[in-house]
Amino acid sequence: MALIVQKYGGSSVADAEKIKNVARRVAKAKDEGNQVVVVVSAMGHTTDNLIRLAYQISEQPGDREFDILLSTGEVVSSTLLAMALGNLGHKAVSLTGAQAGIHTDSSYSQARILRVDTKRVVSELKRGNIVIVAGFQGVSGKRDITTLGRGGSDTTAVALAASLGAEICQIYTDVEGIYTADPHLIPEAKKLQEIGYEEMLELATYGAKVIHNRAVELGWLYNVPILVASSFSDSPGTIIRKEASMEVRNKVSGIAHDASVAKITIIGVPDHPGVAAAIFEPLARANISIDTIVQNISINNITDLTFTVARSDLLKAMSMVEPVAKSVGGRECVTDSTLAKVSIVGTGMLNTPGYAARMFRALYQHGINIQLIATSEIRITCIISEDRVKDAVRALHQAFELEKET
Amino acid sequence: MALIVQKYGGSSVADAEKIKNVARRVAKAKDEGNQVVVVVSAMGHTTDNLIRLAYQISEQPGDREFDILLSTGEVVSSTLLAMALGNLGHKAVSLTGAQAGIHTDSSYSQARILRVDTKRVVSELKRGNIVIVAGFQGVSGKRDITTLGRGGSDTTAVALAASLGAEICQIYTDVEGIYTADPHLIPEAKKLQEIGYEEMLELATYGAKVIHNRAVELGWLYNVPILVASSFSDSPGTIIRKEASMEVRNKVSGIAHDASVAKITIIGVPDHPGVAAAIFEPLARANISIDTIVQNISINNITDLTFTVARSDLLKAMSMVEPVAKSVGGRECVTDSTLAKVSIVGTGMLNTPGYAARMFRALYQHGINIQLIATSEIRITCIISEDRVKDAVRALHQAFELEKET
Repeated sequence: MALIVQKYGGSSVADAEKIKNVARRVAKAKDEGNQVVVVVSAMGHTTDNLIRLAYQISEQPGDREFDILLSTGEVVSSTLLAMALGNLGHKAVSLTGAQAGIHTDSSYSQARILRVDTKRVVSELKRGNIVIVAGFQGVSGKRDITTLGRGGSDTTAVALAASLGAEICQIYTDVEGIYTADPHLIPEAKKLQEIGYEEMLELATYGAKVIHNRAVELGWLYNVPILVASSFSDSPGTIIRKEASMEVRNKVSGIAHDASVAKITIIGVPDHPGVAAAIFEPLARANISIDTIVQNISINNITDLTFTVARSDLLKAMSMVEPVAKSVGGRECVTDSTLAKVSIVGTGMLNTPGYAARMFRALYQHGINIQLIATSEIRITCIISEDRVKDAVRALHQAFELEKET
Repeated sequence: MALIVQKYGGSSVADAEKIKNVARRVAKAKDEGNQVVVVVSAMGHTTDNLIRLAYQISEQPGDREFDILLSTGEVVSSTLLAMALGNLGHKAVSLTGAQAGIHTDSSYSQARILRVDTKRVVSELKRGNIVIVAGFQGVSGKRDITTLGRGGSDTTAVALAASLGAEICQIYTDVEGIYTADPHLIPEAKKLQEIGYEEMLELATYGAKVIHNRAVELGWLYNVPILVASSFSDSPGTIIRKEASMEVRNKVSGIAHDASVAKITIIGVPDHPGVAAAIFEPLARANISIDTIVQNISINNITDLTFTVARSDLLKAMSMVEPVAKSVGGRECVTDSTLAKVSIVGTGMLNTPGYAARMFRALYQHGINIQLIATSEIRITCIISEDRVKDAVRALHQAFELEKET
């Protein structure tokens, strides 16, 4: 008898009929002889509606209250799923994050899981229950409700799977798996049967927003295989796990893109220690992610510093960067908010010459100008103009022959 | 510095603007130098919407899940009120029933409060916080969420007031207080400045559905003065407390009515011990309230047994009564679902001859037939035809001169 953890996202539980559909899928897993723990997100647009309500009340709703408010969405869907399972003749109990033992720190709205106390879940499983856990939430040391941030239900699911020693964590969503590129953009994109954790992390950060990064990291850390599949079909999906074999290496797995990038350049920055820290520390405190940092070679101890942020963070970032840039002696800040990122992802890429060259040539052949380049062990990213992103993804998909059967 | 508990009902927190209005009222109480604990119901029709959702999922949603589901409504409104207070510059924290230490038994959907552990509430008050408690809910010994049944937020408020030793429990609602009769029916009805607990209980049971009976009973038991007033005006409201003076006694306080009564008569019941128990025990187990029981004198050890139930319970009650009636040898069951109750309520009534006679005469003078009569220490109730209930309330209001200033 295997123990499996399933997670269903907001679009999979958007209304009563969809919840009944999920219940049938959960029941099937149980009937096949498994112990089943299910993590659910809030129904459809519930979370957005609660956020809107909060901002009708106050422009600055307190973090603590905000988290309690948002946590109710997942509690509602978890009880409804338990009822639907009851209706199918299955024993099911819903648990809040607190009841399921998801202990977090006190960083409201972006709490980190400190530990999972599985006692209650295990005892309910032993009594033959299917256990439904409200995702996205936990409880702090003060017994206050916390939420894990966007995508937190994925993290809840993988954390539970790791703590319970589950055989697999199945993330059911509205896409059929991980593709070699966004299928909306590249109809001939292929679904991957499997992908390594590290590659998946690069794909997720760089645009393939199917599963939350923290969940993948956690899966990697605790070696939990994660299946990503559709809740609306029986298509097999993609398994994220440790690379299965040598042959998988040295290959481009997929093309990721992100069409909402903004670039900030500080011109004429004195090149001495501490300047970068002075600029980036306030941004980190404000929780603004910096994606790509490029510092040109310095001439006469003066350099230019360029980095990218999500377009939605640009105004906030500039309000922090401009005064700091001035105080460290920078000449000018310029921005460009019409950019996009396109990346090729695959293990062992940097050890294999030729990938970067092939990427740059493909873009060049399509007349796409590269503004910035950034690389990691398993990824090469180019910043290009937003209006060429579709062309770029298509060009790279062809250049690396990803439409071919593997 | 006084400690007061306020409670706001669903219509008082029905939308963002109304919640802001409630926040201003709470802030005023705090600014006047009080420690303030606030209990809130769910916004407007939230609870009804959640119930509808549950029944879309399953015709028999499990009790445990149902309670968790419903409890979210009050959690949402409590966090929003805390945000609104924050927006006014006040420190406020919301607590769920569990966090506020409302410990109950495990009777889902109608849990009774066993004890209130005030530790968390007291510590938040000491830190200068206004404490907002989600009404209607508690936590069982197993740390499962329970709800207290309809009107449960009133009970939460009075229980907290009693446990905290509050000076007063203020129940704010959409009416201005307790009247000598339903003001919708009798425009000249007068608002009472004060009323005793016992009288209030009779008024509430018999139609004046302003505050839940369990809350009044709890107030009586722990001697908590309860103010009933409007959340939309500054009108003074009605205080429910121990009769203040001798003069209050021996006076009709008000006329109550209930226009949705059904009567069940079992004809030809053998008059021997155990029959009544056999009939009423199943009804009690099914949680059907019996309001008035009349057994006629027996002739040849055969009697007729008549009792009333809420009209909405008639079918369920009959499905239980008919087989039992047959099994104990009853001849026939007849029902009438077109009835109403009208009552006069006041302390010391039975010790003062003349009230009953005056009541019966007033009804007789208006040609209203009395089908059943029931009395308590402080109430005389007549069951009449539903289509005469307005005439009856008006006739009694005049007969006891309740329109006059007190």
